[in-house]
Formats: sequence, C-alpha cells, structure tokens
Amino acid sequence: MRTPEAYKESLRAMRPNVYKFGELIEDVTEHPATRRSVEGHAQIYEQAMLPEQEEVFTTLSSLTGERISRYLSIIRSAEDMLANSRMKRRMFNLTGTCTGARCVGWNALNTMWSVTHDIDKKFETDYHHRLREWILYAQANDLAVAGALTDPKGDRTKAPSEQEDPDVHLHIVGWEEGGITLRGAKVMIAGASAANEIFVLPGSKYKDSDADFAVACVVPRDMEGITIVEARHPNDGRDLEEGFDNPVDIGGITQGYILFDDVVVPAGRVFMAGEFGFTGRLIERFITPYRSAIGGCVAGQGDLMIGAAVLMARANGLSERTFRQKLVDMSINNETTYGMGIAAAVLGKVHSSGSWLCDPLLANINKVHVATLPYETKRITQEIGGGIAETGCMPSWKDLGSEEYGELLRKYLTADADGMRRAKAARMIEWLTLGSGVPGTMHGGGSPDGARMFVSSKTGLEEKVKLVERLMGEDEQDPGE
Amino acid sequence: MRTPEAYKESLRAMRPNVYKFGELIEDVTEHPATRRSVEGHAQIYEQAMLPEQEEVFTTLSSLTGERISRYLSIIRSAEDMLANSRMKRRMFNLTGTCTGARCVGWNALNTMWSVTHDIDKKFETDYHHRLREWILYAQANDLAVAGALTDPKGDRTKAPSEQEDPDVHLHIVGWEEGGITLRGAKVMIAGASAANEIFVLPGSKYKDSDADFAVACVVPRDMEGITIVEARHPNDGRDLEEGFDNPVDIGGITQGYILFDDVVVPAGRVFMAGEFGFTGRLIERFITPYRSAIGGCVAGQGDLMIGAAVLMARANGLSERTFRQKLVDMSINNETTYGMGIAAAVLGKVHSSGSWLCDPLLANINKVHVATLPYETKRITQEIGGGIAETGCMPSWKDLGSEEYGELLRKYLTADADGMRRAKAARMIEWLTLGSGVPGTMHGGGSPDGARMFVSSKTGLEEKVKLVERLMGEDEQDPGE
Amino acid sequence: MRTPEAYKESLRAMRPNVYKFGELIEDVTEHPATRRSVEGHAQIYEQAMLPEQEEVFTTLSSLTGERISRYLSIIRSAEDMLANSRMKRRMFNLTGTCTGARCVGWNALNTMWSVTHDIDKKFETDYHHRLREWILYAQANDLAVAGALTDPKGDRTKAPSEQEDPDVHLHIVGWEEGGITLRGAKVMIAGASAANEIFVLPGSKYKDSDADFAVACVVPRDMEGITIVEARHPNDGRDLEEGFDNPVDIGGITQGYILFDDVVVPAGRVFMAGEFGFTGRLIERFITPYRSAIGGCVAGQGDLMIGAAVLMARANGLSERTFRQKLVDMSINNETTYGMGIAAAVLGKVHSSGSWLCDPLLANINKVHVATLPYETKRITQEIGGGIAETGCMPSWKDLGSEEYGELLRKYLTADADGMRRAKAARMIEWLTLGSGVPGTMHGGGSPDGARMFVSSKTGLEEKVKLVERLMGEDEQDPGE
Amino acid sequence: MRTPEAYKESLRAMRPNVYKFGELIEDVTEHPATRRSVEGHAQIYEQAMLPEQEEVFTTLSSLTGERISRYLSIIRSAEDMLANSRMKRRMFNLTGTCTGARCVGWNALNTMWSVTHDIDKKFETDYHHRLREWILYAQANDLAVAGALTDPKGDRTKAPSEQEDPDVHLHIVGWEEGGITLRGAKVMIAGASAANEIFVLPGSKYKDSDADFAVACVVPRDMEGITIVEARHPNDGRDLEEGFDNPVDIGGITQGYILFDDVVVPAGRVFMAGEFGFTGRLIERFITPYRSAIGGCVAGQGDLMIGAAVLMARANGLSERTFRQKLVDMSINNETTYGMGIAAAVLGKVHSSGSWLCDPLLANINKVHVATLPYETKRITQEIGGGIAETGCMPSWKDLGSEEYGELLRKYLTADADGMRRAKAARMIEWLTLGSGVPGTMHGGGSPDGARMFVSSKTGLEEKVKLVERLMGEDEQDPGE
Repeated sequence: MRTPEAYKESLRAMRPNVYKFGELIEDVTEHPATRRSVEGHAQIYEQAMLPEQEEVFTTLSSLTGERISRYLSIIRSAEDMLANSRMKRRMFNLTGTCTGARCVGWNALNTMWSVTHDIDKKFETDYHHRLREWILYAQANDLAVAGALTDPKGDRTKAPSEQEDPDVHLHIVGWEEGGITLRGAKVMIAGASAANEIFVLPGSKYKDSDADFAVACVVPRDMEGITIVEARHPNDGRDLEEGFDNPVDIGGITQGYILFDDVVVPAGRVFMAGEFGFTGRLIERFITPYRSAIGGCVAGQGDLMIGAAVLMARANGLSERTFRQKLVDMSINNETTYGMGIAAAVLGKVHSSGSWLCDPLLANINKVHVATLPYETKRITQEIGGGIAETGCMPSWKDLGSEEYGELLRKYLTADADGMRRAKAARMIEWLTLGSGVPGTMHGGGSPDGARMFVSSKTGLEEKVKLVERLMGEDEQDPGE
Repeated sequence: MRTPEAYKESLRAMRPNVYKFGELIEDVTEHPATRRSVEGHAQIYEQAMLPEQEEVFTTLSSLTGERISRYLSIIRSAEDMLANSRMKRRMFNLTGTCTGARCVGWNALNTMWSVTHDIDKKFETDYHHRLREWILYAQANDLAVAGALTDPKGDRTKAPSEQEDPDVHLHIVGWEEGGITLRGAKVMIAGASAANEIFVLPGSKYKDSDADFAVACVVPRDMEGITIVEARHPNDGRDLEEGFDNPVDIGGITQGYILFDDVVVPAGRVFMAGEFGFTGRLIERFITPYRSAIGGCVAGQGDLMIGAAVLMARANGLSERTFRQKLVDMSINNETTYGMGIAAAVLGKVHSSGSWLCDPLLANINKVHVATLPYETKRITQEIGGGIAETGCMPSWKDLGSEEYGELLRKYLTADADGMRRAKAARMIEWLTLGSGVPGTMHGGGSPDGARMFVSSKTGLEEKVKLVERLMGEDEQDPGE
Repeated sequence: MRTPEAYKESLRAMRPNVYKFGELIEDVTEHPATRRSVEGHAQIYEQAMLPEQEEVFTTLSSLTGERISRYLSIIRSAEDMLANSRMKRRMFNLTGTCTGARCVGWNALNTMWSVTHDIDKKFETDYHHRLREWILYAQANDLAVAGALTDPKGDRTKAPSEQEDPDVHLHIVGWEEGGITLRGAKVMIAGASAANEIFVLPGSKYKDSDADFAVACVVPRDMEGITIVEARHPNDGRDLEEGFDNPVDIGGITQGYILFDDVVVPAGRVFMAGEFGFTGRLIERFITPYRSAIGGCVAGQGDLMIGAAVLMARANGLSERTFRQKLVDMSINNETTYGMGIAAAVLGKVHSSGSWLCDPLLANINKVHVATLPYETKRITQEIGGGIAETGCMPSWKDLGSEEYGELLRKYLTADADGMRRAKAARMIEWLTLGSGVPGTMHGGGSPDGARMFVSSKTGLEEKVKLVERLMGEDEQDPGE
Repeated sequence: MRTPEAYKESLRAMRPNVYKFGELIEDVTEHPATRRSVEGHAQIYEQAMLPEQEEVFTTLSSLTGERISRYLSIIRSAEDMLANSRMKRRMFNLTGTCTGARCVGWNALNTMWSVTHDIDKKFETDYHHRLREWILYAQANDLAVAGALTDPKGDRTKAPSEQEDPDVHLHIVGWEEGGITLRGAKVMIAGASAANEIFVLPGSKYKDSDADFAVACVVPRDMEGITIVEARHPNDGRDLEEGFDNPVDIGGITQGYILFDDVVVPAGRVFMAGEFGFTGRLIERFITPYRSAIGGCVAGQGDLMIGAAVLMARANGLSERTFRQKLVDMSINNETTYGMGIAAAVLGKVHSSGSWLCDPLLANINKVHVATLPYETKRITQEIGGGIAETGCMPSWKDLGSEEYGELLRKYLTADADGMRRAKAARMIEWLTLGSGVPGTMHGGGSPDGARMFVSSKTGLEEKVKLVERLMGEDEQDPGE
C-alpha cells in the first residue's frame, strides 16, 4: 500500500492531459485548480496507514489474503458495505467534500465483478478473469481509480444509435485483434485529475441496435487519445486566490469532461464489449450500492455543517442552545441518509459471484432523501449562520489586508476576542452551502426521478392490495341481503 | 407452543376483571369491545405454526434450546432485532393495527434482562435469576404478556413523592416477607385484555426520594386487586355494531386503565424494588429497541394504506398510475421508518448480559419519523381516497340495508360492477386514518419531544466542531499580517 | 332577518324527510344526529343580531337596499370577499366546525348571478331575472340554503350519458310546461338537514351529449320526491350519547345523500337547463371563491386547535412556552390559508354582472394549502396533547361515573386542582383532530389534484421563459467565435 | 423624473469612495464589480418612462401632486402596498436579482414618516418637517436611495454601550450646532454603489443607556468621511470575466461595508438623534412592510427559476409536462410569498400621519415563508436542471473557445440544434441557485427567528383559549355526579 507521497509521485509521473481555463495543467499536485482534490485523496492514503483506522480503510483481499485498501476490495457482505458508508462519511469529515477518484472506481469494479460473472456464464467469455487480473494489479499498486458513466447524451428523446452524431455516447469504433477503439466522451467525472486510472461503464441500459455503446473497460487516465477538461464549479475562481476566501486547503472536487479521441484499449482491460443485454443489470448494480453509501457522504458533510453552525453561533457570542431544535433537525437529516444506507446494505443478499447486492428499494429511497434532506440542512446552516454566512457577505481577503481600511474592516467583523474566527467560520459555511464544497450529490449517480421510478417498481402494489382484501374479509357482505 | 384456540381458552379461564362502558366483560374473546384485539393476537399464535413463518415468529430459546415464540426470546444480536422489525411489520399487515399484548411485554423482559444483570452486580441481589425463572415459565406456557409503564402522573411539574396523592404513580405500599404490595395505576396500556400477564416497569427515571416508585415485576392480568377499564378509541361505538362500518374483524386495539388496589406480588415475580439508581438506564434500554422496531409497525400499517388507496382508485375506475407520485411518497415514508429501525439495530452492540442494545441516536431519530411521516401517509391516503374516504362519508350499514331507500343508496355508491367494494374500501381508509385502526404510535413508547432531547444529547456537537476547526486549518491566518 | 328561534321553527315546520341509521328523523332540531348542526347554524342567526358583528354578518342588499344576512348577498367587491373569509373563520371559531347550510348556497347563488347573466346574453333566456326574484324571496325570508354539486358519478372514466345507469348523475327526465323533472342524487351534501332550501348545480363540465345533466335550480329541502339520508362521520355514535365524550353541543356537521325521485321543479326556480356550454365556467366560478374563503374555515378551526393545545399543556401543569415553536408553526399554517384567501380575493376583478371574481391561480393554490397545512396543524395538536389526546385514550363518560371504580379513574385523570378539565380538553382535541369535528375540507369543493391542474394551467410558463431569455441576452454569444 | 442615462451620469459625478479587492473603483457605472448592479437600477428609471408601466412605477406625490417615482412616495393605502409588491416582483423579473438601492431607502423614508410624526408629537421636535423637506428634494431629483440598518454588532450578548469598542454600532460622537458627527459602520448594505444617498436607521431597539446609538438620517453616498468596501458574493470572481459564465449583464447585487469615519451630518438631514424610546416602533414599522413586499422579490426570482427550468428541460429535448408536478410546486411557493405579502398589506391600517401600516402577524409569517419556500424552489430548479445545472458543471467559457478542444466540448454540450442554449440555461440556473444571483433574502430585513418571535407574540393565545372554553361549555359537567 502506498504512502500519500508515493500516490502524489505517481500523479506527477503521468502525462499531463488535464486542462482548465484553456490551459494545460503541468502538475496536478501543485496547480490550484486540482491541488486540493489531490490533497483530499492523499488523505485516504494517510488514513489507511493509521492503526486506529486500519479496520475501516483497509481489509484483507479476498483474492490474495493480503492487506489492501478497502477502495480496491470486493464487497462481499453487509459488513463490507457498512465499512463503505463509514469510510465515506469519514472522508467527507476529513476533506469537506467528495473524493470520487477512489470511490466511483471501487463501485465500478464491484459492479463488474458480478456482471462479468453473469456474462461469462451466458457467453463463455473470459471477462471475469480479465477483471480479476486487473484487480490484482490495482491492489498490488494501490491505484486511485475514478469511474465514468455519464455520456453527453445529445437529444434525450433518441437512442444512441439514432443520434445525428453517434459520438454523443462513448462507443466502440474499431474492433482490433488485441482490443477495441473508443470514441466519444464521458462528462462530469469526479476526481479524474486525482486518479491513476478511469473505470469506464456504459451510461444507460441499451438495446441491440446500440450494442456498440455497451462497453466497460479500465484505462490509465493519461492514455494516448484521452484529454480531460475540468469543469467549473461554484466559486472556483477562488481556487486561484490566496487567503481564507477559499477556506479549505486539504479537500476539493473536480468534475471533468473526458474526451476519447480514438483511444485503443487492450483486450485485457475490456470487461464488456457489445453485450447490451447486460447493461440493464449493470446500471442497477452500479446505482444500488452507490445510492446506499452516498448517505454516508452527505451525512459526513452534514456533520461539518452542524460543526460550522455551532462555531458561528459561538463566534457571535451565542450559545448553541438557542438553536437546539435546528441542530436536532440537522442531525435527523444527517443520520437519516446515513441510516437508510446502512439499512439498504443490511437488507441485501449475496450474488453467486460472491459479491454483495444491496436492497434496491431502500437504496433508491435513500437517493431521494439525499436529493432533499441535505438541502434543508444547508438552509438551516445558513439560518444559524446569519446574513454574513448566507452568501459569504464579507470583504475579500485582499480588502481585509488593505493598509487603508483593512484594520477597520477587521474590527467590524469581530464579535469576540477570537479575531478573524467569525469571518473564517462564515466563509466555511459559504463554502459548504453555496461554494466550492458543494459536491453535486443530487444528480451524482443518477437523477432523483430515476430513483423514484425504481421505488415505484419495487414497492409491490399487488401484494399490498391483497393484504387489504384479506383484512376486509373474504366473504362478500351485502347490506341488502 | 400454544395454538390460537389454546390461547383463547387461557383467556376464558381467567377471572373477568375488564370493564368498558360501565359494564364487566364476562368473556374477552367474545365481547365486541375486546374480541377483535384477541383475534389479532390469536393470529400471532397461528403464524408461529406456519412452516414458512417459523424463522420469523419462532426461535430457539437461548436458555433451553427449545423452539419458542420469538415474543418470549432474549434478543441477542442485530439479526434478532431485524426479526423483531419484520414480525411487527407482518403483524400490522395481518391485523391492521397493534398487537401490544405480546410486543410490549417482550420489550420489557429484554429491558430487564440487562438491567437485573447490572443491579445484581452492584447489590448482589438475585433479580436476574428470578427473571430467568419467570422467562422459563413464560416460554414453557407460551404466554401473552402486555407491558405497562405509563403512570397517571398527576402534576407534571412534581416528582412522584411530591404529589398530593402518591397513588398517581404506581408504588410499593408494603414490603412483606414473601413479596411487595402495589397501589396506583398504569394507564393507556395496550392489549391488556388480550394478555395473560402484565409486565410492570417504572414510568420514568427516579431519584432517591422516589425509591418506592422504582418497581418492576410481572403479574397475572387477573390477579387479585387488579381492575382494568378499557379506554375509548376513535369510532369505538362501531365495535358494537354489525356490518362493514367497522371493516376489520380480525384485528383491533384496546388501551386499558389498569387499577392496582393493593396488589400483593410474590418476590419471585419482582425484578426491581427500590433501586432507583437503575431507572434511568431502564427507561433508555426500554425505549431504544422500542423506537427502533416501531418503524416496522407503522410501515406495516402504511403497507395497508398503499393497498387501500390502490383499491379505492381502482374501485373509482381509475388506474393507480394517476397517483404514482403519491404512492412513491407513501412508500418512501413507510420504508424510512422501517429502514431507520433496521439501521438502529445494526449499529448496536452487545451488553455483558448477552442482550443486544440498539443505537440510541438512530432509534430516537426514528421515533421522530414515526411521529411525523405516517401522518403524511394518512393524508395522502385520504387524498387518493376522495371525499367518501376522507371522513368515511357514506350512509350507515343500516341505511344501506333499508327496505325503503337502501337499494338506491347502494346503486349510488357503486362505481363499477363490483358492488359494495368501493364502499368497503372507503370504510377501510376511514378505519386506518381516523377510525379504530389508528394505533396511537405518536406517543406510544414516549413523546417525540423526549426523543428529540435524546437526539440532541447524542449528536456529539464538540466532535463536529473539531472536524471543522481541523478543516479550516490550525494556523491562524490573519489578513492584516 | 330571522331570530335563531324563528329559524328553528321553520325547520320544525318542514316535512320530515331526513333519515339516519335506518330511521326517519321527526324533528331535526331535537334529534341527536342533526341537532348540533342546527345549533351551529342557529348561531349565525344569533351573530347577525349582535351590534358588534353587524358589519361582518349583515350587509345592505344591492337589490333592495335593505339590511340582509351577508349569506344571501351578491358579492360585489374584494371587501365583500374579505367579509366572507372573516365570517367563515368566526363561524368555525364559534361552532368548531362547518356551517355549510348557509355558505354553500351563498356561493351557489353568486356563481349563478354571473353565469345566468352570461347565458341570457347568448340565448336571450330569462334565468338572471328568475334568480333575482328568488334571491329577493330568500333575502326577505332569511333562508338557510345548502348547495349541492357532487353527483354519485358511477364509473369515473365515462361521461354521464355513457353510464350504464344515467341516474348516477342528477338529470332532467321531463320537460313540462311549468318546469322540469329531476332524477338522480347529490351526495355528501353539507348541512342539508339544517337547510330550508337546496341550491342544485351541475357537478362537472359537460359536453353536448350530456345536456340533460346541465341543470341548476333551487328546491325546498322537503320538496315532494326528495329523501335525505345523512352519512356517517367519525365518532358519530357519540352523537347519540350523553356526557362529554362528544364535547361540543353547539356545533356539528351533517353530510347527506340527497335522493331525487322524479322531483318536479317549477320554471321560476330553474336557472340552467341544458346549456352545457356554460358548465365549465360555472364550475370555475363556483370553486374560485370557495377555495379562497375556505382558508378562513380551516384557520378558524386551527385557532381552536391552538387554544385546545394550550389548554391541554396547562392542564398538564406545563407552560405553553415549552411548545412555543410548535404554536408558531400552527399559527403560520392558520394564517397562510387565511391570508392566501384574502390575497385571492384582492387580486380579483368585477364581472359585467356586477359580481366579484377572485383570482383563480391564488384560489387554487390555497386549496392545495387547505389540503395539506391543517393536517400538520392537527399532528402538532396531537403532539402537544399527549397520548391521552392523540386518540382520546380515556375511559368513557359512563366508566368515569361508575360507582365501582369511577372515583379512581377520575383521580387518575386529574393533573391539577381543576378536576375533569384535562379530560375535557383531551376529548376536544380528539373531536377536532379525528372525531366528529373533522369537516372534510380536503375534498369539499373539489379535489386537491383538480386544484393543481388549475395551478398548472394558470402559471403562465411561456411568459416566464421569455423573461429568462431576455435576461440571458438576445445576441447569441458563441464561445467558438 | 430622470432618464437611465441621467441616473448613471449622477453616479459618475460622485466622489469615488467604493472599493473592492483592495482597489478603488473609479467609475461604478463601468467597473465590472458594480456595473451590473447599476444597470439593474437603471432599468427602474427605464420602466418608469414606459406608458404601460406608469401606474406601477410612478404615482402622484401626496405632497406636491406631481408625478414621481413610486420609490420616493409615501405609502398611504393597501393599494400603494400592492403596487410595492408588484414593482418588486417585476424588478426581479427584469434584473434577476435585488435592486436595493431604491427599495430599502423607500422603506426607510416611509418608516420615518410615521415615526417622526410620533416623536414630534411627544417632544415637539421638527423631525417630520425636516423629513418632508428632504423627501421633496429627493422627489424633485428622482434620487436612488439605499437604506442602512445593520450594525457590525460585536458581542451579541451585550448592548451597544457595553461593548469594548463602542464603534461596533454606529453612533453619535459629536453634537454640533448645525448637526451631528457619526462614527462606526453599517454592514452588508445592498446597492450602496448604485445609490445617490443612503438612509441610515438604528439597527435595533435601544434603551436609555444607548441613546447615542438612536440615530436616523440621510447622507449622500459620497459624503466626506464615508468609505464603502463592497463584499464578496457567490461566484463574484466571474463578474470580472468575459463570456456567459456570468450569464446576466443587466442585473447584479452589491452588498457593502460602509465605514463612517467621523461623518458630519447637517441637522436638516437628521430625523432622530437620541430618542431611544422610539427605536422599538421604528424597527417594527421598518420590517412590517419590508417583510410583506419581499414576498414579491422572491416570487419574481422564482418566476425566473420556473422559466429557466422549462428552458433547460426543453434544451434537453424533454417536454415540460414531465415536470408538471414540480412546476406546480414551484408556482405554489412563488405565489404563497407573493400572496401573503398582499394579504399583510390588505389587513393593515392607516397611521395618524397618513401612512399605511401592514399587518404585523401576516408580514412576519411571510418572512418565515421567504426564508424557507424559495430554498425548495431552488432545489427543484436544480432537480429539473440536471447535474450540469446543479453546480454549473461545465467547462469554462475559455475552454469552450479553445482552439485545441473547444469544438469537441461544444458538440458534447449540445442536445439539439440550438447550440449553446443548453449551456447558457445551465449557467442561468447556477447563477440563480448558487451563483451571483442569490440575493440573501433570508436574513435581509432581519432573521427568520426574529420573525417567529413576532408571530408568537401576535398570535393571541388567550383569545383562542377562550374560544375553546366557550365551545366546551360553561357548566362544569362532572361524570361523578
């Protein structure tokens, strides 16, 4: 297992292929647009080395028996899924935001563990073996692996093969002896800059006419033909600034547009190529654990909102007791997304490949909670924080340092002896609620309405109707008789 | 293990000491005020005999290794708690409402399993042994055991010993060689009429001046000196009527006022007598699993609301698709209380006595959900049900059978070929949402505000503040330097 | 204008044609099933005679200049609509529930004031004149007039003329020289027993094939051929009991099934007969003021919930300060439905007939609030009320009076010196939240989903899209140029 | 009345005293940090000149009978308040955000119109006359007037006079013959850069020991001794960029820290100086109309969210019908804040000075709605908008224009023939929901908890308790008799 420094060193050794604001980023570990994301991911490597975190952040490989990062393990039980939720909550606690360059790739490899098993069973392919080999390699090198599903999609009313430009979904444009050639893009991909490799999955369920779009594989992030443009995010201008206007230095997110310009992927790294009939279950198996464990993510950020709100109240000279009901409501929101994820894990079952499948009804309900409850938590945080925190309404770091009027500003921002602490807490609330810390969890992993469709289909109406009919009595009473 | 008939026979063999509407009920298994509750509990005995329900409704005694009703088992693991939630959900599915004469006594015996262990350790008493003996007896005879905590309480601002009349909390008025004498009352006790025995616990945390009120024991329901008056409940007049205006014949609730008029309890049935210092943990250990598993109760009733709403929509000639979003919202509410209970169970731990303690933060959060989400589910049920279901706005069964105008009424109530089905479905919705099926789960097991106090104390504010401080950085940046 | 006694005398003088529980009610002013509703309506007559209420409950007739009950006036301005809201709120304050035998008829006559004006203009009929004559008669005799729209409807997927049995919508079966003959029923009609006359309107918008169903008229409640069967409502068994288990003696609701068995209506009382093309606007004009002013109804009942909750808290020895946040939430819910009704009135406009048309967008939004906010208010009331109030979980009046154990029960129900006050307050909360006081306002005046359809159609999406396009700038910036 | 150009010219003529990012802004009409705010306010001047907006944006001066901007009028009736709500809604429609440099000053002058009247009556001062003179001057010159209440406040647990540094509340430090000298600051002041003058009011209710802090006056924005530092706001770095990453060019907000460094205010511009006993009613009269009309502001921005959501849905190739329920919910939120403001206006009354006082209960309830409902509207907007809009997750304008990969990015962002329209709509949603358009309305005009205190005090609990007692009946029924 790697040290944080070894991890960063591996990033520096890669071909520079990440851009932002029209310019190539030479070193993602230093450039202000990507540095915080890398630091966030580096903390995962750091945690794994702490004895007290060993049980959460590492596990024994079910393939080799070696101790490995949990982020590269096969999830084989409810307990493994619980550790997933715990780890995600802790990483949000430690970085303030998302560390997608390890979690999404992990989710992808677990998805494919069972799906390749199913495909092989039907088609006698050797995808499962290939995947196993790659996992062994990844575990041995303790890789950071991002995951990429979302296609640009073009006209949403048309299937991939019906689009005017087929490239709006990533697809296979060449079948060579030793591999396949890919063209298109994956967009809004979390943590690509901080990743060593990218696990590519199809973005939706496909029919036979769209077989070329049914592709799963894993590629080095700097492979020939891959270009990444990092997207903007709220307040991202401040990433480039000095001072506490961007209050977090050890965490941050990137969401990249990954362009595939005829990328040749060797066969050993390909785990699905044309088996469209398995894309439906692939999607379901990807989103189910994802939508379970993401409850830990938003709870972890919610923990910080509670902490920041209390800090702010105290910095204003108030007791947090004033806001007890609000803090209780925040805690309820946090633990509900966390707890529902736990429940979805526990009510799951084992797949014949040995991997654990979470309960899809509860997982999708949790997705709806994740798309609503944290918004109310943010609102309450801003309510406790006051006008200064609501929109981060304070002079800039530069103004606070002005020789002309900075001293006056600093005096007016201060509420107690603790100097700039109130200003820093307000900036933190801004960062969490409408700044760079906002992780985009509402649509990450699919839309809430998609989740509601699942809830609808998994609720079991007929069974419930039968229960009522039984309770009302079999014999048809008729008042007229 | 007993058959339903043996269970009912045991009730008939007891001394009649239950009253309602000013009259003594000679046979609780036949009287319309109690019959439905008995039938509901009888179904538990029936389920336990079904091979496909064996795993849920029975288990092996950790004391004897014999197969016993789960309602008399020691809960020793998260899996046992899961079975608790499942069983409760199923019983609400089958009876439409609460079967408290088994579930509360079960919760009480589990509470006392660990509490007597703790008391004995400190005081070298033999309560744990006494309890064990009684449990063996209860398991051997497959008893239905209600639980009783709530005291009348009198002036809420005063402690028990400060009340003008000490009887407003149940208390020990005599300490005899072979036992104790109790006076006072326990009120709003679910299922007393359907129970063989009643497990009595203190109603609150007490201080030393209130030692006489710190009493736990179990008594036969028809013991000398015990009188039970069953309380009214919504639409209870219909219990006495014929026809489908009371649409459920195989389930029902009773909530009794149990009067203790110098009841002498033999020492072997006494598990706490004066050890006030343990009442705080007793209460916490009682409410924690209770507030976890009650999520299964309200989910079970919510299942029926979904079923009844779909039935009603169809009886109106409409597809349930019209109401898909509403049904999804109902499902989310249901599974959230169910799931949070599961999560509270899973995040628990083992007590040194071998019993399982659920997570108090999640359990109490679930209590808040139980006090809010089902209300919204009821509202939606009424919204789908239409005006006829909203308040059960239909002519009475008697009017529907009138020779003069009954035929006209029946024709006007009908929406399709299925005759009175629409009327029956509307009555079912009334029964579930503002009739006799309303189980009183908001305050059952304590108040939501009590739960919020727990949430507040268990949220861990300081820890969250520290996380934020770490994230903001240790070194005090100062813009003026 | 009539005295309360004269009003009751007029009811006693009518032909008995109201049934409940299979029996004819000889005197609606005395029978327990209808008496409380009559008493509630009698209070309207009483209020109108109080000098301090004159401005609210009476006005000058726009037809004669005489002082009349406001319930028989033409609503001609926003101020008239405001008085409507105020009067309804006050009547719920005074009776605890609905007094539909005056308010719905009033709404109907106002609807027809403008609709007959429109019909006459197109078809040169004399409906408006007939209506005016009847209004003069009603004002002169200070009549209580119920309103009846809802048809049984049969199969909801078919139009009236397509039903197997055409009677499931009230319709014209004979056109005689001097009038028309009606057959069918109107169902769930509020206050029929307390009314002198019933104003009949079509229940929906109809097409040409359904012309026979497009009928509006007003009939004496006891007209030949009319039979009324009063529906059940929650806890209605208690209407027949003594004591405070039914805690309100001066208010109550009835909702009747009105059977029309070839009722001959003279032409002078007919205001629409076949003009199907006007049924759409008729429905819209009926529901718009209805959905505005109903905000006053639920606010008026919400006032009582606040009062009852405070009473209960105090009876438990607690200060209402404990529940301040909850009481604030209740107040917000109350005033929101009240205020939105006021706003819908104020944003209205005058029709060419002189009557006032409220704003349909705000009125329908208010309907949605009326179908949701009071449910939360009820929930909070039960939360403050405690377990005893949640389901009215107390021994019956008869048990409280038992010679054997009544004294004990009374002692245990008491929390302070004020004896049975706590029990009475708990019964009041039960009555308001799941007892006979529940007025059925969710579906009264149409369904919430119907209101949402109106909101959707009146929101003006295109206009809002244009605003955004303007703001984004006309000129198509293109980053590639 | 001035043209937009004359207004801008007046700003250019002022002394530069506004700073941001540590630098002096020479011309607020051109500098990117202030230009958009000035353009937004200029639109008010433009609207006032349109014949179709004359009735909304202008009125006849009650002092001179001349046609004036409504923003400088005395509000004398409910109708005037309605025009206030309408005007604010329209300005948010036109600019996307707040134009506080006219609305807050207007609210302040109306507050002081009645307060000076009251002070003069008690102390025989001539404040009302001074104010009248200034209003005549302001009307004649059609001034843009910001309003400033919020003090830095320091330690929230101490009164102004108890603070270590008295400057943390603006206060009078000198009483000269012809005026007063002020020191301290007003913070988070909307629109200062776009204003000609600033109306200063006390920030809270004060006691006698704090008389020096009870000061109201109006000062030119560029007066000697005044320095303004504009605060940061979300995404404000983009104000300085080119292209559509900041999608709105004709609207924007500024919130300034206004430093008063011994500013000498002539007596004629002082309207309160030491009369602490009137600060309580001053605050109440300021917030009541403010909290009414702000419902129009958030509704106006909500209109744009609806429009942007529809645009985005269409740009994705979807019909807005897919999202009908969500759009209905957004519309309900919008119209509820708008409608409640209308109702608060209508239920008001006239003050003896001739100005109109809105209903404080409804106004404060509306404040609570303003602090909650728009948050849900934003959440829905992001839900409809998809992941790209949720956090504005797209490549920057610079990247889109890259010669290397810009074409590819543009192709992948496109969903239909309409090119960059989808990207622009997504940026607009970001701007509205977590970008520069977020106006800070939750705490603007005071905190929601302050509003809840008002609601609590104005709800009238005793009156409601009496209603319930009356309904339960006067005579004490006792079941034991």
